[in-house]
Amino acid sequence: MRFCSDNTATACPEMLRAIESVNRGLVPPYGDDEWTARLDEALGGFFGTPVRAFAVTTGTAANALALATLSPPYGAIFAHEEAHIVTDECGAPGFFSGGAQLALLGGAHGRLSAQTLDAALASYNRGVHGVQPAALSLTQATELGTVYPAVEVAQLCTVARRYGLRVHMDGARFANALAFLGCHPGDLSWRAGVDVLSFGATKNGALAAEAVVFFDPALVRDFELRRKQAGHLLSKSRYVAAQLLAYLETELWRRNAVRTNTLAQRIGAAAGAALLHPVEANEVFVRLGAERCAALRAAGFDFYDWGAPSASEARFVVSWDQPEEDVERLCAALAGG
Amino acid sequence: MRFCSDNTATACPEMLRAIESVNRGLVPPYGDDEWTARLDEALGGFFGTPVRAFAVTTGTAANALALATLSPPYGAIFAHEEAHIVTDECGAPGFFSGGAQLALLGGAHGRLSAQTLDAALASYNRGVHGVQPAALSLTQATELGTVYPAVEVAQLCTVARRYGLRVHMDGARFANALAFLGCHPGDLSWRAGVDVLSFGATKNGALAAEAVVFFDPALVRDFELRRKQAGHLLSKSRYVAAQLLAYLETELWRRNAVRTNTLAQRIGAAAGAALLHPVEANEVFVRLGAERCAALRAAGFDFYDWGAPSASEARFVVSWDQPEEDVERLCAALAGG
Amino acid sequence: MRFCSDNTATACPEMLRAIESVNRGLVPPYGDDEWTARLDEALGGFFGTPVRAFAVTTGTAANALALATLSPPYGAIFAHEEAHIVTDECGAPGFFSGGAQLALLGGAHGRLSAQTLDAALASYNRGVHGVQPAALSLTQATELGTVYPAVEVAQLCTVARRYGLRVHMDGARFANALAFLGCHPGDLSWRAGVDVLSFGATKNGALAAEAVVFFDPALVRDFELRRKQAGHLLSKSRYVAAQLLAYLETELWRRNAVRTNTLAQRIGAAAGAALLHPVEANEVFVRLGAERCAALRAAGFDFYDWGAPSASEARFVVSWDQPEEDVERLCAALAGG
Amino acid sequence: MRFCSDNTATACPEMLRAIESVNRGLVPPYGDDEWTARLDEALGGFFGTPVRAFAVTTGTAANALALATLSPPYGAIFAHEEAHIVTDECGAPGFFSGGAQLALLGGAHGRLSAQTLDAALASYNRGVHGVQPAALSLTQATELGTVYPAVEVAQLCTVARRYGLRVHMDGARFANALAFLGCHPGDLSWRAGVDVLSFGATKNGALAAEAVVFFDPALVRDFELRRKQAGHLLSKSRYVAAQLLAYLETELWRRNAVRTNTLAQRIGAAAGAALLHPVEANEVFVRLGAERCAALRAAGFDFYDWGAPSASEARFVVSWDQPEEDVERLCAALAGG
Repeated sequence: MRFCSDNTATACPEMLRAIESVNRGLVPPYGDDEWTARLDEALGGFFGTPVRAFAVTTGTAANALALATLSPPYGAIFAHEEAHIVTDECGAPGFFSGGAQLALLGGAHGRLSAQTLDAALASYNRGVHGVQPAALSLTQATELGTVYPAVEVAQLCTVARRYGLRVHMDGARFANALAFLGCHPGDLSWRAGVDVLSFGATKNGALAAEAVVFFDPALVRDFELRRKQAGHLLSKSRYVAAQLLAYLETELWRRNAVRTNTLAQRIGAAAGAALLHPVEANEVFVRLGAERCAALRAAGFDFYDWGAPSASEARFVVSWDQPEEDVERLCAALAGG
Repeated sequence: MRFCSDNTATACPEMLRAIESVNRGLVPPYGDDEWTARLDEALGGFFGTPVRAFAVTTGTAANALALATLSPPYGAIFAHEEAHIVTDECGAPGFFSGGAQLALLGGAHGRLSAQTLDAALASYNRGVHGVQPAALSLTQATELGTVYPAVEVAQLCTVARRYGLRVHMDGARFANALAFLGCHPGDLSWRAGVDVLSFGATKNGALAAEAVVFFDPALVRDFELRRKQAGHLLSKSRYVAAQLLAYLETELWRRNAVRTNTLAQRIGAAAGAALLHPVEANEVFVRLGAERCAALRAAGFDFYDWGAPSASEARFVVSWDQPEEDVERLCAALAGG
Repeated sequence: MRFCSDNTATACPEMLRAIESVNRGLVPPYGDDEWTARLDEALGGFFGTPVRAFAVTTGTAANALALATLSPPYGAIFAHEEAHIVTDECGAPGFFSGGAQLALLGGAHGRLSAQTLDAALASYNRGVHGVQPAALSLTQATELGTVYPAVEVAQLCTVARRYGLRVHMDGARFANALAFLGCHPGDLSWRAGVDVLSFGATKNGALAAEAVVFFDPALVRDFELRRKQAGHLLSKSRYVAAQLLAYLETELWRRNAVRTNTLAQRIGAAAGAALLHPVEANEVFVRLGAERCAALRAAGFDFYDWGAPSASEARFVVSWDQPEEDVERLCAALAGG
Repeated sequence: MRFCSDNTATACPEMLRAIESVNRGLVPPYGDDEWTARLDEALGGFFGTPVRAFAVTTGTAANALALATLSPPYGAIFAHEEAHIVTDECGAPGFFSGGAQLALLGGAHGRLSAQTLDAALASYNRGVHGVQPAALSLTQATELGTVYPAVEVAQLCTVARRYGLRVHMDGARFANALAFLGCHPGDLSWRAGVDVLSFGATKNGALAAEAVVFFDPALVRDFELRRKQAGHLLSKSRYVAAQLLAYLETELWRRNAVRTNTLAQRIGAAAGAALLHPVEANEVFVRLGAERCAALRAAGFDFYDWGAPSASEARFVVSWDQPEEDVERLCAALAGG
């Protein structure tokens, strides 16, 4: 019973059908096909504002390309110290930007607070000697399975703008955040002040598809060329576009996110006092102790240790295709612990 | 009737079947799945020597990541002046390597000669002031639809090695070269002295799949980390691996390459004296003059202009799923010109 | 009365004399002159072991070039969160290395501890997803005017090596550390496990001269080419070499460091309970409160605020040519506060 | 008798006097001193227009930092195939820009022509696939000792602007070009359309001083941060500024350039039919044959071979402090050949 990652999942049948449905005829390559052409409109409709959207195949590409568009080589990118771009992308922001430095901040349950950001920016005063505050990167849902309410996103963006920073949102699990809050996609993004969003589909059912969504068209040309130079412009672009269209048009994003959120909350409830963070997406973090970790593994549960090796914390992630009985067994195991 | 590019093509049914066949069960992400695990063996069997192979989704990624593994930021990468890495990858080698400079050489029909390379390297004497010759990149088949015989590859590699260069081969159309020559894959690669090969499948029927094949395992660890940092390690790696396995195991590479080579030769024959380069792969270059170009377009043929705008040269590329009647009509149009 | 920075100082008369003394005759450029040729021997004698040494004109160049030699683009460079390379070099390590990420650790009085480093490295387990621990950078003397005893340097290097990291030392004020400890230069560097040292002279009397000293010759070739590519190989190298030779051969390093250390200790003693860190080099950090800061400035003392804007902490740095009466007045002002 | 390079020269006495004259008092570091503050005015006066000027210590830094300000990582920098930035800066433009590719053009006697540039830009049509034409870099005087008349600079700039390129001029020997043409510095730079000029002094008598002169203030902020990040902002900036001020204010630039130009022309006249390029600066290129090269070396003349090893071409460079009798002997040796 795998709870390691939502990347262990298969691709949704809807995704394979979408791929098959565009697999006909010779069409212009490199994004000049009819399906890619529909991305802007589809995502613009979803977000309720005109956007420019670009498909890539990994979240690291989406995030790092977007950040390179926002930050010069001598820029500082502010992020939570447990953000994916910090811990799990092998230095991609520094590589893509040509040297930008991460400026890391703490915050309970994986969330930054506007006060923390404000304090950090207010004391940033090295002139030409320090990296220049350039971008804020927020993760929604966060790496600890929590979600920023729209008002907090807006507060953070307001602080960022006051100091001249642009705002990126890593939305690898944006659908889970939306499903949890039940609000409009625009409220969590452009209306709150986000400039560019990595809107992930892969963790939520796609085969390999992430949209980089620009709410500021001025950034687009630079992005397009960076994407090509980085080898992230697919020649047969239709197959990635088709996934994103299906993701939106069949409301797959919502169905899958609602399901995984719900199952995760069940696990969180079963974990009781061992729960480390509120369960607001499809991830559950639990302090179990070494013995119970071992016992769960012996019972066939597969999951990642989290935090320091000695912490004996466990992360359980629910995939879109997670069998419900896996979850039931896990709940029973946790509750009986 | 599209002859613009083999990237206009669909994905082969075999490819979609391969993707579907692995779409079951939760498996470890990021290449720790059973299909990715089989890549080394499958490609090792194909090339007749142990290899380490890595899947990526674009040719630019395959080439530039491989070159960054071979060249330091202050390196010189020797290539034909019409190589894809020079003209069509938006500076990817410079970006991925952190600054490496291209050292461009001429050569008839898109091919470098060992003598030209030798002369260039012999006169390269700037000491610490010049970029340091680091890598030779050969394109097989070349951008002008020609093929290096195995003996020429070997001669070029011998010269490269004499001066301490490592050798990369851009094999976006390697299958076409193999099909044309009828030789063993090892003869065109490691036996000739190639260190790393970008072995393309996308242009020859895959949805999006290229293998970077290392014949020298010492280069591998650096590559793996560069791939991750560049956002080219797919989380759901099984779907790319499955394409590459199908490409090899069903001999799809050969079937498609033989077909497109054959059709291209038919077009070349029809072109007669207008033909600019020998037809040895799936591309045909023809000097037509502006009037005939316009007439062909009016008749429904879609193709790229090539060379300088005034040259009125045309490139026709045969895709794996090119309708045979398209080719017949094109031959008729060219022969009747 | 300027206490802002030891960079406000003039160049020592000995330095100008050294420059004048080599200003005769046409000599080979780019480091092939007789004075540059003597650097290895002079610094090897100083450190008591064969070295390869290279002159550059800024500390940022020395540090970032050295670090780029030690860390790949996907590397992690471990450093104290208040290190100069972190706060005052505008992202140079990320730029020179092509993307390396800083991994920051805390530590009292600007010093890292071996335990902290060990704990950080022990819990570093992201595999290919995280940046790869590549280098440890120590600052000696630290940015807070303290010094690592030789045994602590050795302990830190031992931990670093256990995890496969190479060690860089930012010795912009190495002479001050040596003068404070009274130990042999080798004990603070290679004998303790340091691979490469930025040995500064500019802050201690030179016009513009820093030596990058390699104790491991295997790193040298890469460094030389990076230095040239980064524009840090001076054509008329003799003038930088001459400064470094004079710095060592006239024992200028010691005379100046002893003087500035002694004066700084006098200031530290006058500061009494307001002193924030032990005074072990030529810098004094004092918590004064906003009012006293303003009063000191009104009395003609020039110095930098330190830390957060609200902290009202002050940094006083003694320059090699600081008039003794400046120090006396400052002491009187602090003691009477 | 050294004719290898003008980098073999000493520093002018005027330069050392300038350095000594500013060697008093503690002043703000990093360019906030009174001498650096005068650079803009001094260079603005020289060029007859307001400028922003920045001092660095090497020509490679001046050129590559300027180019990085003009070209994105995916840019193409157009230059003559024998330009210094192409052959002698170890890939600095690619490194500083994060990947920009050089687009090389031929041209007689080291000069580009407007027609060649126009043709190259007109046929540049790869869309997002190719590097984007971003900058033109002209060398004045050229690497072959010739000079662009003001009208040719203007023509080249006009073509560049028509295609949206910015223009950089590598003026490592700008003084020699000015002295040869006898025109106003503005005519060879901003009036002709140059955006940023590397105005060299080191080859013409300075110890180590180059000014990067911006005629477009919009580029300045980016440059300042890149300079700092690259370690090219000197802490004790006054000593570089002092050299540049002396260079301009004592008309040293002209005295030295007139002298070396004149002596070079004498050598060129003596070379007679062996002369390869017009002598318009302080360099003389001669085809001598292997025997005469060897004979000259045996007679005590030191010089670089040029071109291909088999070409037996020699380059003679006159330094500002070249003894006149060296030149007389060389003329005699060449004339008697």
